[in-house]
Amino acid sequence: MRTSIATVSLSGTLTEKLTAAAGAGFDGVEIFENDLLASPLAPEDIRSRAEDLGLGIDLYQPLRDIEAVPAEQFGRNLRRAEHKFRLMRQLGADTVLVCSSVSPLAVDDDALAAEQLHRLAAVAEQYGIRIAYEALAWGRHVHTYHHAWRIVEAAGHPALGTCLDSFHILARGSDPRGIEAIPGDKIFFLQLADAPLMAMDVLQWSRHHRCFPGQGGFDLTTFLGHVLRAGYPGPLSLEVFNDVFREAEAAETAIDAQRSLRMLQESAGAASLPAPVAPTGVAFAELATPDAEPVAAVLRALGFDRRAAHRTKPVSLWQQADARLLVNTAGSARREQALSLTAVGLESPSPAEAAQRAEALLAPVLPRRRAPEDAPLDAVAAPDGTEVFFCATDRPEQPSWTDDFTPQPRPEPQPQSPPSLQDPHPAAGGVRGIDHVALTQPWHQFDEAALFHRSVLGLDPQESIDVADPYGLWRSRAFRTADGSVRIALAVGPASADDSVRSQHLALATDDIVTAARRFLAAGGRLLPVPDNYYDDLAARFDLPPGDIDTYRELGILYDRDTDGEFRHCWTETIGRVFFELVQRDGGYRGYGAPNAPVRLAAQHAARHGR
Amino acid sequence: MRTSIATVSLSGTLTEKLTAAAGAGFDGVEIFENDLLASPLAPEDIRSRAEDLGLGIDLYQPLRDIEAVPAEQFGRNLRRAEHKFRLMRQLGADTVLVCSSVSPLAVDDDALAAEQLHRLAAVAEQYGIRIAYEALAWGRHVHTYHHAWRIVEAAGHPALGTCLDSFHILARGSDPRGIEAIPGDKIFFLQLADAPLMAMDVLQWSRHHRCFPGQGGFDLTTFLGHVLRAGYPGPLSLEVFNDVFREAEAAETAIDAQRSLRMLQESAGAASLPAPVAPTGVAFAELATPDAEPVAAVLRALGFDRRAAHRTKPVSLWQQADARLLVNTAGSARREQALSLTAVGLESPSPAEAAQRAEALLAPVLPRRRAPEDAPLDAVAAPDGTEVFFCATDRPEQPSWTDDFTPQPRPEPQPQSPPSLQDPHPAAGGVRGIDHVALTQPWHQFDEAALFHRSVLGLDPQESIDVADPYGLWRSRAFRTADGSVRIALAVGPASADDSVRSQHLALATDDIVTAARRFLAAGGRLLPVPDNYYDDLAARFDLPPGDIDTYRELGILYDRDTDGEFRHCWTETIGRVFFELVQRDGGYRGYGAPNAPVRLAAQHAARHGR
Repeated sequence: MRTSIATVSLSGTLTEKLTAAAGAGFDGVEIFENDLLASPLAPEDIRSRAEDLGLGIDLYQPLRDIEAVPAEQFGRNLRRAEHKFRLMRQLGADTVLVCSSVSPLAVDDDALAAEQLHRLAAVAEQYGIRIAYEALAWGRHVHTYHHAWRIVEAAGHPALGTCLDSFHILARGSDPRGIEAIPGDKIFFLQLADAPLMAMDVLQWSRHHRCFPGQGGFDLTTFLGHVLRAGYPGPLSLEVFNDVFREAEAAETAIDAQRSLRMLQESAGAASLPAPVAPTGVAFAELATPDAEPVAAVLRALGFDRRAAHRTKPVSLWQQADARLLVNTAGSARREQALSLTAVGLESPSPAEAAQRAEALLAPVLPRRRAPEDAPLDAVAAPDGTEVFFCATDRPEQPSWTDDFTPQPRPEPQPQSPPSLQDPHPAAGGVRGIDHVALTQPWHQFDEAALFHRSVLGLDPQESIDVADPYGLWRSRAFRTADGSVRIALAVGPASADDSVRSQHLALATDDIVTAARRFLAAGGRLLPVPDNYYDDLAARFDLPPGDIDTYRELGILYDRDTDGEFRHCWTETIGRVFFELVQRDGGYRGYGAPNAPVRLAAQHAARHGR
Repeated sequence: MRTSIATVSLSGTLTEKLTAAAGAGFDGVEIFENDLLASPLAPEDIRSRAEDLGLGIDLYQPLRDIEAVPAEQFGRNLRRAEHKFRLMRQLGADTVLVCSSVSPLAVDDDALAAEQLHRLAAVAEQYGIRIAYEALAWGRHVHTYHHAWRIVEAAGHPALGTCLDSFHILARGSDPRGIEAIPGDKIFFLQLADAPLMAMDVLQWSRHHRCFPGQGGFDLTTFLGHVLRAGYPGPLSLEVFNDVFREAEAAETAIDAQRSLRMLQESAGAASLPAPVAPTGVAFAELATPDAEPVAAVLRALGFDRRAAHRTKPVSLWQQADARLLVNTAGSARREQALSLTAVGLESPSPAEAAQRAEALLAPVLPRRRAPEDAPLDAVAAPDGTEVFFCATDRPEQPSWTDDFTPQPRPEPQPQSPPSLQDPHPAAGGVRGIDHVALTQPWHQFDEAALFHRSVLGLDPQESIDVADPYGLWRSRAFRTADGSVRIALAVGPASADDSVRSQHLALATDDIVTAARRFLAAGGRLLPVPDNYYDDLAARFDLPPGDIDTYRELGILYDRDTDGEFRHCWTETIGRVFFELVQRDGGYRGYGAPNAPVRLAAQHAARHGR
């Protein structure tokens, strides 16, 4: 089905918006009047620019405050509309959006509204233009789609139809089933927008907080189903007013937008994509650093061994049970100077199919072979630049990324890494695998990253939460497989936070955090100090055995509990941008210790600034 | 009356918060539990730190989900509370906030709530602690202040009283008159917060959008009046959860907070300040630049003359009728490299009294004499660093800043500055004065700047509006005297906007903008180009004579109209951070041409980036 996007959904000049829409594969655009007014391009030039880019101008919008007004005012409105019809002919646009009136002059008289819209349509028809009449959620007298349709039906003019906007319909809680009663050929246009569920003034909600389908709380799949069953032939167009998108790069926003439409069409059965391939585990996490030694020291203290080296690149594989970490010291313009988490490998039942789906969802596919002799690897870039590899580790029928690594001689057993830790079934206190990967997102890409992790990686979103930092508020949302074998936590910091200090972390799972922490400390590792006040509060909040609390206080372990289970964790000091977390997750605990995160953020600020 | 502030209202570590509160003259603080938990300081150390700073710990907060629960759960809650009572003794805090329960375990049973709160108070009393019970607006069963008070009254324990929070009361639309029926000595604590009027979920509204009194839409003056008439002895404490304050400098936020409380006490008749002295005009605006020539060329083209030079500093006075501009080329660390607007002089009936009021409202007072021989000048710094001088220009009984200037020989009449322009009553097309000064604010100081302009400068706020820029959304709000003799428009840009490109501007009033624009262009001045599309739209929107629109299009003049009058304006190209606007304001037009601002912002981006 034809896809379109309103220029108001993208940042920049009109030219930049058109270029971004075309680049993301849209077939057309809605031209938002203010974008045209601010453009130095003449309408004919906009038309030819769009044509050159392969874009149709599917809608011009909006005409406001037209109908149900006194005759004299309607005469003026008609003259104003004719100005716009002439402009639309220059633009090559054949459909115009008319929003239900918010004017204090408008009267509550459907017959008058219908008569005046009929007259408007008759004039439009002379210009070859169709009128798409839409109920604004805050329209003065007309604010539901049923009402707008009743007026269109009463007007009975072939150049007059209705425009449906999912935001206006769902924000008011209207039942979208009634859409099926509207003849599909009288639905002249469909605007799609999602929004987080917020109990706030609907105009403010609409103007600032809309988002792309799948990024909010509306059921757009069901909504679109009703519209398609009504016989609406297209296009599907996104009209999203969003304060963040206004500031983001238009090209990225357009890709995010197109991805959301492809997902929506798939879920509504209107298009098929390569099937989702849910990952089954974390194959590895890759750390890049100019100097491996500081992180190597921490990994040794955590019980990891350097198991293998890449055949052609300065990359070491560190392993402990199922936790595999790559440490990459190759210099590259892309890499930052400080230690950072640059790639994640996900175990995939079918890496090639996972990559096909990712590509169909417009994820930037990374070159398949890194070097001629390397094993082929399917990988895509996440919105924040993290490379995501689809892996088949040590599966005989598939090439494995581990084939590129040459095993290293095992070191002599050392106190801090007893032989048992090298066993696939680690002794108490060993790390068994990666519990979760936590990635800080650029502030304007949080919704985009959320959609990416859900659609491209096939992960399920968890609840979004706020976390207070001494210098601002963080928002965090995790994505996981149903069985918890893969968990990726995304966070976005205060606007003022310095990107260079935004930390990433790797949480390592253990079945015995007390032993794990003791060993780490005994091996010279340093944990983030936790204030005594925290433990006094812990004693007040939970009826934990006092001995346990003393132990946690001594080591710097934090505790949380939900209805399903318990969570104990502690954090290493930060190296570059990265720190490690030791995690003991018991029972069905679903969270990430969020109540303790403010303590961590304060301690990390203190460690960084010595205050 | 004693003033206090909750630590959650300020950013930073607990130590930083205490220092900021003391620096702004607060008498005490509310310690928010999470701030204590994240602090490495022991409670005794916090106590002595506060004592050293002259701060009392007026409240510890909050205890949650205590009352109206099954007996076994209440036993656990009591143990939890006792932990906190012991902690409070270490802190030296004698009042604790208990919020009405939001727990699903809580039952709707006032008698049980009263009985359990009585028992809690009895235990608290043993520690010398008082319980202040507050109705959260979203409490499960108790969410109004009447209800909380009925329970406190029924409990009848001397160590149990109520806490009133203006947000919880006013956000639900409760009538605050009933407060007068509560005995003042049973109001154990008063928390004050304002908030912009928003129709949104009250919990989200409360957690993210509270602000200081006078910065939002609540009538706190009336509210406080009721509390004082009830006999409440104090303290007045600010509890403000605000996402922006979380990121701002604590010291500045604390001053903003204290200023808001002083204003509130004045308006409620609880304290007196030096009386406001409303300004009566703009005496001058000062531009700083390392190189005067580019701006001098524009000023000459606008019809200004260089009238005088400062006796001791490299400052020139440019004048045209009542518009006076200082161009300062003194290098100073404070000055930016690019041309910028650094000071505004306001005509004041009594500069000394204006300065006294500013000082009482904690505005940073600038050194009174700039050089030994200079005329004394009263000046304060606005939150954005702009210097505001209180002036008595050419009034015999007062020293005048103009006394420091030596008149320059008049230049020979030139085509671009005909002699008539040097007349106090300029000919058609001359500038008659400064219509308004527009200052871009750092994004986290918008509310603070608004309060400053209202309280310190005695200006009245106008409506706050959104303005779309191609790369983000601006918010703008103007402040003016009742007669429009002084107008200052503040704007805050998208978070991502680069501070260095944030423009400031001076709007110059003329009675004939067409002539003014023609003369400016004829004198070699350059106006910002306005797209043709704008004029086509103007013809559609307004029934202006076509000849007028052609003229506006030719010159680059924009048009707006409100119910009271008309506005015509055009903009010069930007030099450094500054541009000039020519403004013809007719009738009672109250705005600033906001509907045209997106066109300007787009054109300015285009001029800057060539796109």
